[in-house]
This record gives sequence, structure tokens and C-alpha cells, in this order.
Amino acid sequence: VVGLDPVLESLPPALRPRDNTHAAAVAALESFGRGVLDVVAPHVPAVKINAGFFEAHYGEGLAAYYRLVAHAHTRGLLVIGDIKRGDIGSTAKLYARGHLGAPRQEDVDPAMIPDAVTLAGYLGENAVRPFIEAARELGRGLYVLVRPSDPGADEVHEFGSGPRFYEHMADLVGRWGAGAGLLGECGLSCVGAVVAPKDAASTAALRARLPQTPFLVPGYGAQGATAENCRPCLRADGSGAVINASRAVIYAFERADYRVRYGDDWQACVAAACQAFAADVAPLLAPRL
Amino acid sequence: VVGLDPVLESLPPALRPRDNTHAAAVAALESFGRGVLDVVAPHVPAVKINAGFFEAHYGEGLAAYYRLVAHAHTRGLLVIGDIKRGDIGSTAKLYARGHLGAPRQEDVDPAMIPDAVTLAGYLGENAVRPFIEAARELGRGLYVLVRPSDPGADEVHEFGSGPRFYEHMADLVGRWGAGAGLLGECGLSCVGAVVAPKDAASTAALRARLPQTPFLVPGYGAQGATAENCRPCLRADGSGAVINASRAVIYAFERADYRVRYGDDWQACVAAACQAFAADVAPLLAPRL
Repeated sequence: VVGLDPVLESLPPALRPRDNTHAAAVAALESFGRGVLDVVAPHVPAVKINAGFFEAHYGEGLAAYYRLVAHAHTRGLLVIGDIKRGDIGSTAKLYARGHLGAPRQEDVDPAMIPDAVTLAGYLGENAVRPFIEAARELGRGLYVLVRPSDPGADEVHEFGSGPRFYEHMADLVGRWGAGAGLLGECGLSCVGAVVAPKDAASTAALRARLPQTPFLVPGYGAQGATAENCRPCLRADGSGAVINASRAVIYAFERADYRVRYGDDWQACVAAACQAFAADVAPLLAPRL
Repeated sequence: VVGLDPVLESLPPALRPRDNTHAAAVAALESFGRGVLDVVAPHVPAVKINAGFFEAHYGEGLAAYYRLVAHAHTRGLLVIGDIKRGDIGSTAKLYARGHLGAPRQEDVDPAMIPDAVTLAGYLGENAVRPFIEAARELGRGLYVLVRPSDPGADEVHEFGSGPRFYEHMADLVGRWGAGAGLLGECGLSCVGAVVAPKDAASTAALRARLPQTPFLVPGYGAQGATAENCRPCLRADGSGAVINASRAVIYAFERADYRVRYGDDWQACVAAACQAFAADVAPLLAPRL
């Protein structure tokens, strides 16, 4: 999975907005997003589009997020909407309508809704239940935060002993995903977990704790994790996890080695980094003995 | 505080959209929102606008949320943006730009940014730090979830023993809010907490645990809490908390007693319910002996 987390200040020089207007800012972000999606599509099955980077530009920014989801679909990509929403049940229903459910108005393009979303499950089952219902009805999915990649999250997730808080969250996510009609052909649930690789032992323990839960694995590349660090997130048959790289791919045009090879062709840099990323993690998908 | 959580199916008949288009849906929600803000403004100091109810209508819905924040400001109201965002530091920076920081483009109306937001602090300090910086610079605020109103959240928040998870979160929020430059004239921090009233003893214990933390108190009215239940959320001098009512006020036109008095004048119903709510909680603001 390639993560699309674009910030205005880091766009390729050719794409930076010409003036300091809001419309130019949103157009620049969207243009970069389309350019990334176009060149990564041949190399990865899915992208993760981070809503926060678009909400930095208000309602129009979020509208661009939805248009990029639709654009990714035209390129044959699956899309994970990285929204990390989490609110009480009455509000969760509305978030689920906008972010995972089928549109209720006839003039809304259904292609702009992602195939899966990331969620915070810290307000309990009611906060994720409307998303689970939408996922079951529409063949979509969700990934609930269990072990975030930011080490700063440890002050919350390492709380408690026997089990720790993140293990408690893992147990809840496993339980929420075990309901009738939620398991697919491979025995994996539509209720997944966001699990960053930490030390191999604790990551393997989470994998064992959640045998039917697909993992979305952040932290590869710019955040420091290697393909080898990610290995314990996969099941022994090589399934059960998707690995995300964001900055290492989408900002590849900043790297001297790619610039030497591709000059100002930023899309060639992104394509090459994406290919390198896919090749780096491909061996993980082979069954282990 | 009046909470604006509008759903299309519950709008007054006169405001329901005439056709099943997306534009008509957003216009109906916005029109209802403006009508509520206009009539509650004389009776309360602030409103809480829930972004989730607008995101149910995608980017254009969120754009309406921002326009309603600006409209509330023209009515002299303070605005809490109920967004419950919470993501790792690199993403939190961008969410803070869009939801609490000063606009960077010259053609963005600064009045559309709320005075405070609600946040999830479950990814640790890095997830809230960019919001704290914006709050300190701009004289704004944030409320971090400590004890949500949905009983379904207990499976997460009652985790652990000595202290429980919600007490751990309370300690973190208290620590994050104790930094230099964060306390105002009344000795209250710009880093607040969302604390729903449960049993009086545990609520009073949270108040004592967080002496400098302003509370945003959900749960009044439709969710079952009375003014008396909210009392332990306030400090002995009657300061330190704002109490939110959403459905009990904005859907007052559904109540038979108000309809008898005001007929189809839905705004008169909302105004009357808002006045009754303000009168009900006013005694809490008096200092206790």
C-alpha cells in the first residue's frame, strides 16, 4: 500500500501553487495526488489516502480527498481512507454514512467512497458498529487502531499490566470482527487492525492473538521499519497484512539518488521508489515453513 | 452550550429537501443550522458543532460546517468544533492546521475556525501537541476525551485497576495542560477534558484529579443526565465546566408540549427549550459553600 499524505510545502517545485489562494493550494495538492496515483497503480494493489492532509484545507480539501479516492478507483486501485474517526454511537452512524456507506443521494458518485477506512475504537464497540454494518453489506473493511506507529503513543498503549492496554484493544477488535458474516474466503475478517511493527516478539504475539484479523502495517520506510521488521505481522501463509509506505515513496523526488537518475521527472522518481518498495516487501508474501 | 448535531431525517418538515440531490441535502442542513444558531444565541455563550453530522455529506457537508462556525461567530457565539480527531504527530499537525490554526491562505475567512475543538488523545501527547500550540498562540482551546458519555465506551475506559484507563487519560490530560503559558486568568488551562457525568463520587474524583482543567460535559438531556448529575463537574466556585445539550434543544419542535404552545414555529420551540435548558443549569454556576 502506498500512503498519500501530501503537504503543500513538500510538493515538487513544478506543482507548487502560483499564488497564496486557497483554490490554488487545493488544486496543487490534488494534482500531486493524481500524479502519484497514476504512477503507483501498476506496482501496488492499494493506496491509503490520509484525510487529515486534505482537511488542512477545510471542506474543499476534503472534497479533493473524495475526488482522489474516485481517481484511484479509475486506476484499478483499492483505497483505504485513513480517517481515524472514533466517536460515540450516535455520531459514529453519521461518520459511517459519509466515509464508508453507500451514498443516499442519487447524484453522488459511489466511486468516491473508499473500500476500507481506519478507525479509532477507543469509544468501544458502538463507535465502530455502524462501520462494521456498512462493511458487511457492501463487502468493505475497516482497520481499528491497536498499536500505532508513533512511539509517542506508548504512554497510552503500554498502560496496565497483564494484559496491557494495546492487548486489551486487540482482544476487543478480535471480538468485534468475529461476528456472523464478517469472515471472507481466506478466513480473514472485514474488521482489521492497525499494527505497527515493534520488537519481533510482541508483534508475533499480536499476530497470534488475532488469527483472523488482517493487519494494516504502518511505519515502513520514513518511520524506520524495514521489511524484515514487518514479517511478524503476516500469517505463516504470507497473507493477513498489507504494508504501507508513505513518505518513502511519494517524496522520492527529494532523494539525491533518484534525482541523479531521473532529474526533474518527479513521477519517475515516485514510480521507481514504489517499485523498489514493492520488490522489498514481496518476499514476505511467500509462505513460511 | 448547545450542540448542533443535525440529521436530515429529523429536520422540521418545512426545511426538508425538496429532492434527493446532494446539494439540496447540504442546503437543508445548513439552513437548519443557521436557524438554530440564530435563536439560541441570546441564551447561551457557546455552541458545539459536530463535524460528523456534516461529514455524512462529504466535502460539501464539511464546507457547510465551516460556514456555520462563521455564522455562529456573527451571532456573538463561541464555537467548539466537535471533531474528536486523534492521529500520530505528523498527521496531527495537519489536522490542527485545518481545525484550530490560523488560515495560511489570505482568502480564507478566519471566522470559520472554531474557538476550541474536541480531540481524542489516545495516540499520546504528539497527537494533541500541535493543537496545544495553536491554542496557546491564538487564545483558543481544546477538550480531550477522558470519559465519554456513551456507556458503550466503558469496555475501554474502565480497563485496568489502580488507576483505571480513564484516570490514566485524565492524568495525561492534566499534565499536557500544565505547561508554561497554558493557564488563563481563572487558573484554568486551555487544555480541557470531555467528562460525562456518571456516579457523583467518581465524577467528583475526576474534578479533584484535574483542578486546572475545564470540563466539557456531554450527556445532559436526551442522553439522560440532569443538571444535578452535572454539578460535580464544576469547581466549588461554580466555574470550570460547560454543559452541553444537543437533541433536547435542537429537536424541541418534536415535543408535544412545545407544539401545543408554538405550533409549526420550530424556531420558537428551539428558543424555548434553550431558555429552559439555560435556566435549569444556571444554579450550578453559583459558588458552593
